[in-house]
Amino acid sequence: MIKVAVDAMGGDNAPGEIIKGAVDAVSRRNDIQVLLTGRKEVLEAELNKFSYPREQIQIVPASEVIETGEPPVNAIRKKKDSSIVVGMNLVKNGQADAFVSAGSSGAILVGGQVIVGRIKGVERPPFGALIPTEKGVSLLLDSGANVDARPSHLLQFARMGSIYMEHVVGIPHPRVGIVNVGVEEEKGNALVKETFPLLKECSDINFTGSIEAREIPHGGADVIVCEAFTGNVILKLYEGTASTLMHIVKKGMMSSLRSKIGALLVKPALKETLKSFDATQYGGAPLLGLKGLVVKTHGSAKAVEVSNSIIQCVTFKEQKINEKIQESLKTEKQDL
Amino acid sequence: MIKVAVDAMGGDNAPGEIIKGAVDAVSRRNDIQVLLTGRKEVLEAELNKFSYPREQIQIVPASEVIETGEPPVNAIRKKKDSSIVVGMNLVKNGQADAFVSAGSSGAILVGGQVIVGRIKGVERPPFGALIPTEKGVSLLLDSGANVDARPSHLLQFARMGSIYMEHVVGIPHPRVGIVNVGVEEEKGNALVKETFPLLKECSDINFTGSIEAREIPHGGADVIVCEAFTGNVILKLYEGTASTLMHIVKKGMMSSLRSKIGALLVKPALKETLKSFDATQYGGAPLLGLKGLVVKTHGSAKAVEVSNSIIQCVTFKEQKINEKIQESLKTEKQDL
Repeated sequence: MIKVAVDAMGGDNAPGEIIKGAVDAVSRRNDIQVLLTGRKEVLEAELNKFSYPREQIQIVPASEVIETGEPPVNAIRKKKDSSIVVGMNLVKNGQADAFVSAGSSGAILVGGQVIVGRIKGVERPPFGALIPTEKGVSLLLDSGANVDARPSHLLQFARMGSIYMEHVVGIPHPRVGIVNVGVEEEKGNALVKETFPLLKECSDINFTGSIEAREIPHGGADVIVCEAFTGNVILKLYEGTASTLMHIVKKGMMSSLRSKIGALLVKPALKETLKSFDATQYGGAPLLGLKGLVVKTHGSAKAVEVSNSIIQCVTFKEQKINEKIQESLKTEKQDL
Repeated sequence: MIKVAVDAMGGDNAPGEIIKGAVDAVSRRNDIQVLLTGRKEVLEAELNKFSYPREQIQIVPASEVIETGEPPVNAIRKKKDSSIVVGMNLVKNGQADAFVSAGSSGAILVGGQVIVGRIKGVERPPFGALIPTEKGVSLLLDSGANVDARPSHLLQFARMGSIYMEHVVGIPHPRVGIVNVGVEEEKGNALVKETFPLLKECSDINFTGSIEAREIPHGGADVIVCEAFTGNVILKLYEGTASTLMHIVKKGMMSSLRSKIGALLVKPALKETLKSFDATQYGGAPLLGLKGLVVKTHGSAKAVEVSNSIIQCVTFKEQKINEKIQESLKTEKQDL
């Protein structure tokens, strides 16, 4: 039995979509158990709408909720009975293998580090965002955990990201690229120039060199390594540009009677193609390098993303990702 | 007479589209003169295809061409008779007010600094890229000139960008935003945290605070200030995501007979709407803070972008932008 704690109170669509996602996950796998954290009465009422194997979903009461705007450090310290803190304590105490939340990124980040705790040797646990590309999906890390990183941090991101993409997403020998402003080796800022030769010497990753931002949507690398400020800019611009363009395309299609008729004919095919440009099938953003797994889904996550995130945790545990990360830290020591 | 030197040999579509653009520009304004730099015979043969007021276009011979891949510092030093070096010398010697090129960004940047030279007091001339948004256009700077900037550089970007957007593009009191990973004041990396209070104290700009990357396509600020590594990532990702998405949309539309018929009906309206999401009407990317103006167009620029870039130089000169920049440097001194 793999046990996944799920924050039933976090995100824009809680608890409805979260619980629907949990029910869906247990219908897909009978060897998992979901522990929902949140207000007991609320969750019970919601769960009663579904039929599911009772022994696979359990409620762990948590009376408080951390809101998105709250200063994270304070929130984690003060709201001991919040759905996030209770869920993370389940991982810490070994009662759950992983924790999934659509709640406050800041609180998840802080809680992950201070409650769940880092694997010994991991300097900075990065957020790895799974972003859609023309070829499938890439892992962008650090996508927002710790700004102003050092070269040694980026090296660990590359190693942990490679392990994740190979064993959780299933891409053999994932190509690792470092975000840069050109592909020539003399290009870059101080951080990239210092990190580049270290990555080149890494024996256990498939480093393919610099990747320019324009190659990211084309799937130019499977693991995209960068400092968190850059990573967060990439992630947010990616989402913003995609939504703006789709908005413009829709506006264009609705602008005349002729185009409206055309839109009706185009819609099913377009929907099908755009579905391929969507990473939610791979689950949420893993916070890597912790004792246990913490996954952040979009704040707007619907049931399907929640369900996929739970399954993602199961694969993470089955593939012994943390054991593999520990192994790679040993290689790191030998390399130095 | 305003004189604009134009590199007739730079970019993917030289000399054909460059010359077509020059001819178009002189047909729009009779108070300008274009000085084309490049191989005399080639340019003459090309010019003979058009009829235009002869006195408005002049060829200034240059026998060499700097290729995109060449190391810029070396190229500028060695290729004294290249279309870029000859064009920049025209600006330096006061024979031209501005220089437009679709050639090597690196060479344009180096040449701008060492041949044309900086305005006294300008620390680092930034590339300002004009990027399309839902609301019109924003100026992103520094979009790639000098990585690892200091707070004082960003302050100058904000000032010069404001002057440009107000007087060349025509946006009164342009909103200045600094790229950040959140809108709360405690967010950011070391550079942003240090720069933020300085921008807040600037009396001559309309600073509106942090802008998250996802707000850029929505037109969240008119002047978007950031360090060049981040700026270059934004610019390239923006272009890459837009082209990838349009490719996916087209693929979807062509995937069945039904959708193909729909695409025919949708096409004219879609084309019209997408035209609004295009910044080439505003010209190329100005390299700001030089004695004279240097404008870099896309390497793939067609005649319309070249023509608009020439007109952009005219406005720049007419609006006395460099005089205004010098004035603002005095304000800067008073502020310190």
